[in-house]
Amino acid sequence: MGDFNESVVLDAIRRVPEGLSRVELAEATGLSAQTVSNICRRLLDHGLARETGKKSTGSGKPRTLLQVSPEARYALGVHLDPAVITYVVLDLLGRVVTHLRTPTPRVADPDETLAGISASVRRLVTESGVPRDRILGLGIAAPGPVDMAAGLVVDPPELEGWRRVPLRDYLAAETGLPVLLDKDVIAAAIAERWAGAATDTGNFLFFYLGTGSGMGLVVEDTVLRGVSGNAGEVGGLGAACTTRAMVDEAMQLGVLGHEFTPAGPRDAERGLVELSRIAEAPGGGDDSAKAGDIIDRWAVRVGRGVCAAATLVDAEMIVFGGPIWPHLQERFLRIIPDMVARSPFVKKIHPTAVTSTGVGEDVGAVGAACLVLDQTLSAQPRSLLLR
Amino acid sequence: MGDFNESVVLDAIRRVPEGLSRVELAEATGLSAQTVSNICRRLLDHGLARETGKKSTGSGKPRTLLQVSPEARYALGVHLDPAVITYVVLDLLGRVVTHLRTPTPRVADPDETLAGISASVRRLVTESGVPRDRILGLGIAAPGPVDMAAGLVVDPPELEGWRRVPLRDYLAAETGLPVLLDKDVIAAAIAERWAGAATDTGNFLFFYLGTGSGMGLVVEDTVLRGVSGNAGEVGGLGAACTTRAMVDEAMQLGVLGHEFTPAGPRDAERGLVELSRIAEAPGGGDDSAKAGDIIDRWAVRVGRGVCAAATLVDAEMIVFGGPIWPHLQERFLRIIPDMVARSPFVKKIHPTAVTSTGVGEDVGAVGAACLVLDQTLSAQPRSLLLR
Repeated sequence: MGDFNESVVLDAIRRVPEGLSRVELAEATGLSAQTVSNICRRLLDHGLARETGKKSTGSGKPRTLLQVSPEARYALGVHLDPAVITYVVLDLLGRVVTHLRTPTPRVADPDETLAGISASVRRLVTESGVPRDRILGLGIAAPGPVDMAAGLVVDPPELEGWRRVPLRDYLAAETGLPVLLDKDVIAAAIAERWAGAATDTGNFLFFYLGTGSGMGLVVEDTVLRGVSGNAGEVGGLGAACTTRAMVDEAMQLGVLGHEFTPAGPRDAERGLVELSRIAEAPGGGDDSAKAGDIIDRWAVRVGRGVCAAATLVDAEMIVFGGPIWPHLQERFLRIIPDMVARSPFVKKIHPTAVTSTGVGEDVGAVGAACLVLDQTLSAQPRSLLLR
Repeated sequence: MGDFNESVVLDAIRRVPEGLSRVELAEATGLSAQTVSNICRRLLDHGLARETGKKSTGSGKPRTLLQVSPEARYALGVHLDPAVITYVVLDLLGRVVTHLRTPTPRVADPDETLAGISASVRRLVTESGVPRDRILGLGIAAPGPVDMAAGLVVDPPELEGWRRVPLRDYLAAETGLPVLLDKDVIAAAIAERWAGAATDTGNFLFFYLGTGSGMGLVVEDTVLRGVSGNAGEVGGLGAACTTRAMVDEAMQLGVLGHEFTPAGPRDAERGLVELSRIAEAPGGGDDSAKAGDIIDRWAVRVGRGVCAAATLVDAEMIVFGGPIWPHLQERFLRIIPDMVARSPFVKKIHPTAVTSTGVGEDVGAVGAACLVLDQTLSAQPRSLLLR
């Protein structure tokens, strides 16, 4: 996709949907007028950008605006969750063009799941109607631990029978596309950065609540992956919050009957939906109060964890999301923003905002596709070493 | 100091003290033989590198080796600690050339302290005998919170009377040098990366134990500063460990007499030295056991904190250091490596090493000087945008 400066210009254009003039681009990037002009010519030639109307500047002649052409390129994203697999096609602006969901097979047989993913990716491409030669690549968001360098899913606690499964290379062979693999919480943070609540900050943490939980950390515009791609584990912070643990607690306290004993990740979510329904039941009595207390206690644990992490990395925003977030959102947001504001550890140098995902339920899959956009379109300093 | 690729080559040379040949440099950097050859010529012309003997390669003619010229440039570092101010001069290899210490004035008068620092910096330069035109700049490590953008020390708990003190700009005006300010724990981590225990890893955390405590985090070769330069707070992890808190506990438990009540940060350290002496006393009886227990309990708290942080950022090394580390080292290292190895959250994807600083007691001041080396000599992707 061209060179470093070209990526810098494209990135600047995409952040301003109404378009930027060449003069504004030179100001925004620090590049010379001549360099900007050459790069814009190439972007127009390759169809990545288009000219779109003029902007009057008061004095002088009106300036032509450039916008990204959203339909010039596409990225595919797959989120492998123990309960459900989500597929998306994104355009160049990070918007969802097509969307697909399939339940994750219950059998402890990765081969069957792999074959299913491969078939669904083909279906996704067909349904989207996107020309094959405009697809930049495929991103996968998988539960940790992963082996990022080798492209393996190592042994996620909720994916029975998965041991060092070569998900990345399998899908690369099956689809013929460049494939990237990342941990789900890291992908989700990238989605928030590209197309969600965190497009205006380079310092935030994303707390993911799904079958498992974890954090995606972005510090000074860098997504933290760590030495093996497994950054984001929150167990040590006491903030691990799984659907299953909440449902187990509700059964122990008699709020949920034992018919909710989860046989698998999908059942656990059914229990959680019921738990939040009981908690919010109008005029709800004892069980309702108990259900609310269970959720509130988890909110406090998660709140302590995000306070600790936000102070550790000096973040200015905390974003919550993931599949079970909609069921917890109301109570969590009654408790956690106050905890953050009152935390003696969140220093008074700057406020720390607490907010819901701007991407929604598909944040994992959107993040997976954003891995591709990010690697293809963002300025990658490493590429400079090779010239 | 030249361009991006020049920094990349210089960085590669400095990491191999015995020197590298041009062929090895091309391999190490991915740059073409011609580019490497041009850059080496410039480095030799500017005196930053020198040719030093030949290396036989078995076949072909022996290759000339290049080394960094350590005396080509120098950096100054100041560490403002509430108890003591440390000053160092580093050469281009990050080695301490000259070293100076003064007690931090007890008075709550930043002006007096600033004047003292300025005078000591002049003395340091004179004593070092380093030519003024070879000094790249001055780095300052200060207790947090800091306002990095504005160069201010904001209001550190142990520095009475300090409120938004413009330390950076004051020293820039007084010395005429470029001056950089960073939080002490962040500077310490940079020292470990440049010249200490972490030269071979880009994923580690440095736990600093001094008048205050905190962590410096390095993830994927990037030092984490956060949105305001205050990353590294460990209070939320329950791992805050101050000299004063340990001495207070020892007095409450009757292990130290009330003559150890700290009037200031320096007294607290006196109490800690006595506490560790009692703990290690041969055949020491009740008080000795109690003193040991106090230290061990702090080790467990700190151990939990580093486990949580190491997992959160997927680090492969934990380094301990700071002024009070020598007094705690023995007991802490009997406890914490086991905790890290047994932690369910430190995933089995890779081991996590626990080690002592390779820089020693001056780690804050060395880190401050390394800020200058780092900014001047390391490849800074941002510089690429301006050409």
